[in-house]
Amino acid sequence: MGQQPIVAAVIGATGYTGSEVVRLLSAHPLAQVCTVTSERQAGRPLRGACPWLASDLVLEPFDAESLEANVAFLCQEAGFAMEFLPALQRRMRVIDLSADFRLSRIDDYETWYGRPHTAAQCKPWPVYGLCESKAAEEIAAATAIANPGCYPTATLLALAPLSDLIDGIPVVDAKSGVSGAGRSKTETDYLFTELAGGFKPYGVTGHRHTPEIEQELGRRVRFTPHLIPAARGICSTIHVPLRAGAGRADVLGAWQSAYRDRPFVEIRTEGWPSTKEVQGSNRCVLAAAFDERTGHAVLVSVIDNLVKGAAGQAIQNMNLMFGFPEDTGLPMAGLWP
Amino acid sequence: MGQQPIVAAVIGATGYTGSEVVRLLSAHPLAQVCTVTSERQAGRPLRGACPWLASDLVLEPFDAESLEANVAFLCQEAGFAMEFLPALQRRMRVIDLSADFRLSRIDDYETWYGRPHTAAQCKPWPVYGLCESKAAEEIAAATAIANPGCYPTATLLALAPLSDLIDGIPVVDAKSGVSGAGRSKTETDYLFTELAGGFKPYGVTGHRHTPEIEQELGRRVRFTPHLIPAARGICSTIHVPLRAGAGRADVLGAWQSAYRDRPFVEIRTEGWPSTKEVQGSNRCVLAAAFDERTGHAVLVSVIDNLVKGAAGQAIQNMNLMFGFPEDTGLPMAGLWP
Amino acid sequence: MGQQPIVAAVIGATGYTGSEVVRLLSAHPLAQVCTVTSERQAGRPLRGACPWLASDLVLEPFDAESLEANVAFLCQEAGFAMEFLPALQRRMRVIDLSADFRLSRIDDYETWYGRPHTAAQCKPWPVYGLCESKAAEEIAAATAIANPGCYPTATLLALAPLSDLIDGIPVVDAKSGVSGAGRSKTETDYLFTELAGGFKPYGVTGHRHTPEIEQELGRRVRFTPHLIPAARGICSTIHVPLRAGAGRADVLGAWQSAYRDRPFVEIRTEGWPSTKEVQGSNRCVLAAAFDERTGHAVLVSVIDNLVKGAAGQAIQNMNLMFGFPEDTGLPMAGLWP
Amino acid sequence: MGQQPIVAAVIGATGYTGSEVVRLLSAHPLAQVCTVTSERQAGRPLRGACPWLASDLVLEPFDAESLEANVAFLCQEAGFAMEFLPALQRRMRVIDLSADFRLSRIDDYETWYGRPHTAAQCKPWPVYGLCESKAAEEIAAATAIANPGCYPTATLLALAPLSDLIDGIPVVDAKSGVSGAGRSKTETDYLFTELAGGFKPYGVTGHRHTPEIEQELGRRVRFTPHLIPAARGICSTIHVPLRAGAGRADVLGAWQSAYRDRPFVEIRTEGWPSTKEVQGSNRCVLAAAFDERTGHAVLVSVIDNLVKGAAGQAIQNMNLMFGFPEDTGLPMAGLWP
Repeated sequence: MGQQPIVAAVIGATGYTGSEVVRLLSAHPLAQVCTVTSERQAGRPLRGACPWLASDLVLEPFDAESLEANVAFLCQEAGFAMEFLPALQRRMRVIDLSADFRLSRIDDYETWYGRPHTAAQCKPWPVYGLCESKAAEEIAAATAIANPGCYPTATLLALAPLSDLIDGIPVVDAKSGVSGAGRSKTETDYLFTELAGGFKPYGVTGHRHTPEIEQELGRRVRFTPHLIPAARGICSTIHVPLRAGAGRADVLGAWQSAYRDRPFVEIRTEGWPSTKEVQGSNRCVLAAAFDERTGHAVLVSVIDNLVKGAAGQAIQNMNLMFGFPEDTGLPMAGLWP
Repeated sequence: MGQQPIVAAVIGATGYTGSEVVRLLSAHPLAQVCTVTSERQAGRPLRGACPWLASDLVLEPFDAESLEANVAFLCQEAGFAMEFLPALQRRMRVIDLSADFRLSRIDDYETWYGRPHTAAQCKPWPVYGLCESKAAEEIAAATAIANPGCYPTATLLALAPLSDLIDGIPVVDAKSGVSGAGRSKTETDYLFTELAGGFKPYGVTGHRHTPEIEQELGRRVRFTPHLIPAARGICSTIHVPLRAGAGRADVLGAWQSAYRDRPFVEIRTEGWPSTKEVQGSNRCVLAAAFDERTGHAVLVSVIDNLVKGAAGQAIQNMNLMFGFPEDTGLPMAGLWP
Repeated sequence: MGQQPIVAAVIGATGYTGSEVVRLLSAHPLAQVCTVTSERQAGRPLRGACPWLASDLVLEPFDAESLEANVAFLCQEAGFAMEFLPALQRRMRVIDLSADFRLSRIDDYETWYGRPHTAAQCKPWPVYGLCESKAAEEIAAATAIANPGCYPTATLLALAPLSDLIDGIPVVDAKSGVSGAGRSKTETDYLFTELAGGFKPYGVTGHRHTPEIEQELGRRVRFTPHLIPAARGICSTIHVPLRAGAGRADVLGAWQSAYRDRPFVEIRTEGWPSTKEVQGSNRCVLAAAFDERTGHAVLVSVIDNLVKGAAGQAIQNMNLMFGFPEDTGLPMAGLWP
Repeated sequence: MGQQPIVAAVIGATGYTGSEVVRLLSAHPLAQVCTVTSERQAGRPLRGACPWLASDLVLEPFDAESLEANVAFLCQEAGFAMEFLPALQRRMRVIDLSADFRLSRIDDYETWYGRPHTAAQCKPWPVYGLCESKAAEEIAAATAIANPGCYPTATLLALAPLSDLIDGIPVVDAKSGVSGAGRSKTETDYLFTELAGGFKPYGVTGHRHTPEIEQELGRRVRFTPHLIPAARGICSTIHVPLRAGAGRADVLGAWQSAYRDRPFVEIRTEGWPSTKEVQGSNRCVLAAAFDERTGHAVLVSVIDNLVKGAAGQAIQNMNLMFGFPEDTGLPMAGLWP
C-alpha cells in the first residue's frame, strides 16, 4: 500500500454501534482504531466487555482535551455530542452516531426529544450524512457528520427519489430487530424471554425518527415501528399513494437514476428481500410493487440497522470524508444463514 | 355434567390447524375427538405424527360415506371441502378451516385463487364464521361454517366496527409467524436456517386474504403481509384515515359497543400488545392511537393465528352451533414466556 | 361437581413460576386462585404486570398473618420460604417453589448456597416433592412440599430408577431455555440481543442443582448446564456407565416398572424427543440408547422447566395433597409449533 | 500488492458451505473466485440462488475436464469427491469439504457410512486438514485436503493436546446450530416451525463424526450431538476423566503449548464462551474447569460450524497451501449481536 492508515477513535466502544464500528474497522485497509473509550469500564480490556471483537485494545476514559485521532466516532447516549462535538470538530473529523445533530430545526428537536438542545449555536452544523442523498463533495468537505438514524436510512433511501411521484401521505410501517434498542436497555421488556416468539408495535405515533424522515423528505409521513424477534435488521414497508398515471416502472426508474454508481443500494426486481440478506452488510435492498386496486405503490427497503443503519454508514461517511472509495473495507455480502 | 360429550372428527389431523383442533378439544369438557384422519399416514398412531399431542388415537383414512360424528373439522388443503362439504353437511355439522367457502362471490374466488370453484351450487352456503361479527343465532342455525382466515380475523375484528369512522383506504400492514405457512411447506424457503434472524414481506399486492377482508368490510383495503421469525402470532397494524372530527375515543367507543359481552376480544387502553400475550389463547387484543398530524387512526390487533385465527375460532363456532357457552374449553390465558 | 374448589394463594405471582401457577390453575376444575401477591407491584391489577393472564385479580402485598387459603404456592426469591414457611404450614398447605428446603442436610445448603440456613429447625421438614419418586401417601400427608428444581426433576426421573444398573459416575449434560433464569434477571447477559443465535455452558462445575440431584440419587454426579436460545424447556442428556451385562432393555424395564400408572412420564422407544413436544405440558419424555463401544447408556429426559420443572409439578403435588387425581387440570398435550 | 490473486473454483456454490466459501473469499486479498458451479441451477446468476452474496458470477455446470483454477473447493454431497478428486488433484490444489476422504481406514468409512468407498486407491491420499494439528509444511505440500468435520474440529482442538492427561473415556456432548444439516434438507423436520423454541439430541450413539474424532485422537470417545435453535455455532462440552494429580493448570498449559502462535485458537481463562462470539469468525475459543469432586476436567470449545468448522478452515488450508499467512482474509471478530 504505502498509504499510512488514518487513526480512528471510537467513543463509547462497548455498545452495539460502537463495537460494530470497531468490528468493521478491523477489516478496513486504510483506517485503524487506536482509541476505544468507555465511561463505566475504563481500564478494562475491550476483550472483556466485547469478547467477540478479539481485540487487544484497552478501554480508556474519554478525555476531550487529550484525544488524538484523525476521526472520532461518537457512539454515546443522547446529549454527549451536544457537549463535545462543537469543540472536537475543530481538531478532527467527527462522526456522531447519536440523534443530537440530526434535526436542523432546534424546535423540532425540543418538541420530539422533550429536552433543550444545548448546542444550538454549533458551527458549522454537522452535515446529515445519508451518503446516497448528498453530493460526495458535501460530505468530503464536512468537519462533522450527523449519522442518520436506522429507520430514516431505510425509509429515505426508498422515498427520497420519488418526490415527483407521491400524491398523499406515505404510510411507513417499519419493523426492526431488537439491537436497535441498544445494549444498555437492561429492563424486563428487553429480556430474551419477553421477546422471543412474539412481536409488537411501539412508539406508534410518536417515534423520534418521524421528524427526521420528514425533514429530509420535506413531506409529512405516517410512521409506526415494530419490534421483531431478531437481533438485527430493518424492513421499512411503505405504502404510498402515487399521482395518477404513475406506476412501478416510474418508481424503478427514479431509483435507478438516483442510485446509478452507488455500490450499496441494490434494486431488486424479482422477489422480495429479507433483512437476513443484509445481515452484517452495508447494503440496502429496495423493491417495489404497484397495487392498481388502490393506487398505492408498496416500497420495501431492507438494511442491517447496525451497519447501513449505523456503523457501516458512519464508515462510509468516513471514506467519503477522507477521499477513499466509498466502499473501502465495507462488506457487501451478508451473513447467511 | 351428566351431559354426554359431542363427538368430533378432525379431517387432516397431522397439519398445524388439525393438530391444534385436537389439542384444544383434549381440554374441552363437552366434546371429544373420536376420529382423526390423514391421507398419507393412515394406520399410524397420531402420536407418531404429532408426538406433542400424547394421544392414543390412530390415524384413519378419510371415508366420507362411513364417517360418523356430530361435527367434522375439515383441516385439509384447498379443494377438499369443495368436494366433500356439500354432502357432509347433510349428515353432521361441518366446520371448514380452508378458504373454499369463505368468498361468497364465485368470481372473487376464481380471480384470486386462480382456479374454478367446483361447488358453486352448494346449498346452504356455509356461514362465514367470524363469531363476534355475527348474531349467535345465525351461527347456531348453520349446518356448515366457513372458518375465517387468520389475517381477516385479526383485521376484521379491528376494522369491522368502525365503518362510520373511516374516510379513505385503510392500509393493513400485517405480520405473521411462520406457522401460517402450514406443516407441509417443505421447501428451502421455510427451513429454520432461511428464516431465523430475518423478516420480509410476501404476497405484497396479491395475497388471497385481501378479498376476504374486503367482502366482510364492504370496502377496499391496501393489504400486505410479512413473515416474522416466530412460530405463532399475527399482528395486524392498520393505518386508517378517519373522517374529520373523529379520534381515538370514537374508535374505542365503537369497539366497546361491538364487543360488550364477547369474552375473547380485549380492548387494551394502556400499552401495546405483543402477539406473545395470546400465544395458545383464543383472545384477540385490540389497541388504538390517533395520529393528529396525519389524521390517521392506528389500530393494532393481535391474535394467535392457529387459535383465534384457526382452530380456536373453529371450536368457538362449534360451541355456538351446539349451544354451549361461547368460551367453553377455550384458553383465555396465553403461554408466556 | 358439587365439589367446592379449594382456594389457592400465589405468593410472588408476577415472576415466571408464579404466573405459570396462576395460568395453570385458571384451567383447574377443583382449585381457584383467590390471592396473588407481589412485593413491588401491590395494588396493581395482575393484568398490568402479566397481560397474558387476562386475569381480573389485583396484586396484594404479602401478609403472613392475614393470609387465608387452603394452599399457598411460594414463588419468591431464595430466603423467603425460610422466613415464612415454618409458621404458614401450621395454617395451610404450603408448596415452596424455591430451593430453601430442598436440601435436607443443612451443611449441603450452606456449602452450595454460600449462606446460613435460618430455618434449620423447621418441623415438620417439607417433603421433597418429586411426585413420581414418592408414595402418594407421603405427599398426601405432608403439610409442606419442597418442590424440586427443574434440572433435578428432569435428571432424577431418568436416573433414579436405575440405581442397580449404574457402575460409575453419571455425566449429566443439561440444556435449558432461558426462562430458568427468571423474570428479574435484568442484566445485559439476559437481553434478547445477547442470547439469540448463541448458546453456552454456565455453572460448569458448581451449579446448585448438583447436590439436589446427588441427595436424591445417593450418588455423585458430574453436572453441567447450558443456556439455549429458547424460552422454555430442559433436555438432560445423561451418559452413564452401566454395570457389565446391562443394556438398553434393562433401562427401559426399570423405567417401565417405576412409571407404570404414572400419567406424566412417557417412555419413548422410537426417535428422540424435543423439548418442544412438552412446551406447556406437565409431561416428561424419556428415551435411552446403549453405546456398546463405550459401555455407556445415554439417557435423554425432556420437560418444560416451568411446568413439570416448576409450576406444573407444584400443582401435581397439590392434587396429591388434596386427594384429587394426580393429573387433574394439568395439560398433557404440548403447544406445537 | 503487485501479487496476482490465485484463482478459486467453488464446486457446489449454492449450499451453506459453498456459499460461505464464496462469501469469505470475497474479502480475501490474495484469492478470487472465478468459477461457481451448481448441478441444478447452472445458468442462473449466483445472485438468484444466494441473494446475500451480492455477486455477479453466473452458476455453471461442473465439468471436470475443462475446469481451470489454482484451487478447487469441493462443496458437494457425499460421493462427489470420491469420483472427481483423484484426477482433479493432478491439475490443481483440491480442498474437499465433504467426508469422503476424512477416514483413512477404508473399513471405518464403510462401517460408519454404510456404503463402499469407491476411491480407496486414491494417491496421494488427501491430508486431514485440521490446521492447528499439523505442521504447516505438511499442508503446504499437500495436493489435496480432506477438510475436517465441524464436530471433530471443535472437539479435537480441545482434546488433541491433552493425550498425556486423559485417563478414561471422554464424554463429548456437543450442540450445533441447524445449518449443520445443510440447505437441501427440505424435510418437515427442518422447518422453522418444527425447530424454533425447542432442542433435542440426534445421532445419539451412531453419528458419523465419531470415528473421525477417534481416528485423530487415537482413543475411543462417547459422542452425542444435539440440534439447537440457532442458525450457526457448535459448542462441544467434553467431560474427561484426568489422570490422578492433573488439574486445570495442566489443561491450560497443554493448550498454551499447542496453540502458541496459532491466531485462531483463543484460550479463555475467565468466563465461558458463547457460540455467538464466533459467529462469522474463524476463531475457536477454548475454556476449561476441573471438577475435583469427580476428577473430571470439563472442556468447552466453541466455533462457527460454517467457518472454522467448514469454509473458514478450508480457506485457512488454502492459505497454508499457497504460502500465505495463515490468517489472510479470514475474520477474527464475530458478528454480535
